[in-house]
Amino acid sequence: MKVLVAGGAGFIGSHLIDALLAEGNDVVCVDNFFIGTKENIAHLKDNAHFKFYEQDLTDLDKVLEIFKKEHVEYVFHLAANSDIQASAQSPMIEYKNTYSTTFILLECMRQCGVKKLFFASTSAVYGEQMGAEVSEEAVALKPISYYGGAKLGSEGIISSFAYMNDMSVLVFRFPNVIGPRLTHGVIYDFVKRLKDDPSHLKILGDGRQSKPYIYVLDLVDAIMHFKDAPKGVTLYNVGVETQTSVTRIAEIVCEKMGLSGIPFEYTGGRGGWKGDVPVFAYNLEKIHATGWTAHMTSDEAVAKTVEMVL
Amino acid sequence: MKVLVAGGAGFIGSHLIDALLAEGNDVVCVDNFFIGTKENIAHLKDNAHFKFYEQDLTDLDKVLEIFKKEHVEYVFHLAANSDIQASAQSPMIEYKNTYSTTFILLECMRQCGVKKLFFASTSAVYGEQMGAEVSEEAVALKPISYYGGAKLGSEGIISSFAYMNDMSVLVFRFPNVIGPRLTHGVIYDFVKRLKDDPSHLKILGDGRQSKPYIYVLDLVDAIMHFKDAPKGVTLYNVGVETQTSVTRIAEIVCEKMGLSGIPFEYTGGRGGWKGDVPVFAYNLEKIHATGWTAHMTSDEAVAKTVEMVL
Repeated sequence: MKVLVAGGAGFIGSHLIDALLAEGNDVVCVDNFFIGTKENIAHLKDNAHFKFYEQDLTDLDKVLEIFKKEHVEYVFHLAANSDIQASAQSPMIEYKNTYSTTFILLECMRQCGVKKLFFASTSAVYGEQMGAEVSEEAVALKPISYYGGAKLGSEGIISSFAYMNDMSVLVFRFPNVIGPRLTHGVIYDFVKRLKDDPSHLKILGDGRQSKPYIYVLDLVDAIMHFKDAPKGVTLYNVGVETQTSVTRIAEIVCEKMGLSGIPFEYTGGRGGWKGDVPVFAYNLEKIHATGWTAHMTSDEAVAKTVEMVL
Repeated sequence: MKVLVAGGAGFIGSHLIDALLAEGNDVVCVDNFFIGTKENIAHLKDNAHFKFYEQDLTDLDKVLEIFKKEHVEYVFHLAANSDIQASAQSPMIEYKNTYSTTFILLECMRQCGVKKLFFASTSAVYGEQMGAEVSEEAVALKPISYYGGAKLGSEGIISSFAYMNDMSVLVFRFPNVIGPRLTHGVIYDFVKRLKDDPSHLKILGDGRQSKPYIYVLDLVDAIMHFKDAPKGVTLYNVGVETQTSVTRIAEIVCEKMGLSGIPFEYTGGRGGWKGDVPVFAYNLEKIHATGWTAHMTSDEAVAKTVEMVL
């Protein structure tokens, strides 16, 4: 099958391409290197089944040209701003890179009769649910970050395109994803701070912010497993049942760096920054009922990622 | 209070401006005349409390200029494509006129510190709920029209802007709105067809499509009544409990035109066009609990509108 991976030079996208190629597919990768990097796809440069377009996905005419030329059967849409903290200062980033990319891809699919889509959504669509475990049937979707708002908007317009054009869409809402090729986030920050100055570690908030971290290869495994979705929109929360607190991450980082007795200096308060959801738990009953579970716990994913970031 | 009405030359927007002026506010109206008309605001031309900008709301720099010049306290956002049937053929209309207008207005509000917003949403965000009465806490938002998808997306990004910037937002989800200044829709079509050829009336679908129709002045009354919303997002379904079937509309039109015995010719099938929700009922408990109800029933609103369209 010939497929298009939007945002394929990114952290998750590039791992997905590896899996799609391993399965025998032909992959057309489109990325504008806004967050994705040349390094992430450098190993694919001589692969005859891999083709790359450096292209911004908000230019309808240009993206349509690619669709008309490549005749793909499936679109994996992982193009988005993934740095929530950055867009908190500049919401237009989410308008352009998270929402508009979705609408343009859907319009290209409509015009070219492409019927299969995978969409990378996020736990951020739920907003802050006061510690409740949120299921896919959550009664209220109240995103508090521009990122979550733009992703919820993407899900909304996907719903209508799927209905109007008889598409088969798989939507995953996933939490923090970590692993090789990660470029930002709390693990990255802690390692950097301790390398710069191992005398202490500054931690945003009270350290009790706690979230599930999923290992990127577990997530890719799930995409590959569920990608042949039926007509309509199939939605799953994809994650791990365990969580890791920010203080626990700091402990794991210190341990892996061979540092002990480092004083943790908390800035205090409930969370890292405005728009961050400090405590989050997923209800994973729907996906677990299918027999699929992640291989790594949240702590294991963190530990493995720290080793790679070092 | 100085307020901005986006889409103020439109059907609902122009009635809202009349009410806002009557209450003693200063009104800045912004419209690109995509659907709005000069006629709708012609009566305001010499009103010293009314100011008009012909401006597309998708141009951030230009809209920001207006915000910086006018220092408004409240934004009433009624700019959108309102012709669902038209955008079914050209979804990009919804990207531009329904979603992008929302994001740009929110960004201007953020940059200029405007904290109060009214947003005109729609029953179309619910999609097709199989005849169930949908409440604001509906478990699934699955829009089937591009219009509904873009409006749901707008609600999503409003949620995040409201949280990030401590805004007070009132969101109304309303069904078909009719009354003076209406420019399209089934009532309009029936009157036109019967004026052209009173020997028969073609009706799309089986005529049993049934929806609540709210009179535009009832809706404006509700906006004025609830506009001082508390911090955060306050959401109401706004409508009438009664519904009017397409066949009943045809009967009312014939009656008002003094025609009797006109054969109705049904095209058959469940609905008028793809993306249309043929049967829809609202749960209005939340708004009724406040004491507010619409003055006119759905049939009364239809009858009064027919008289005006004739």
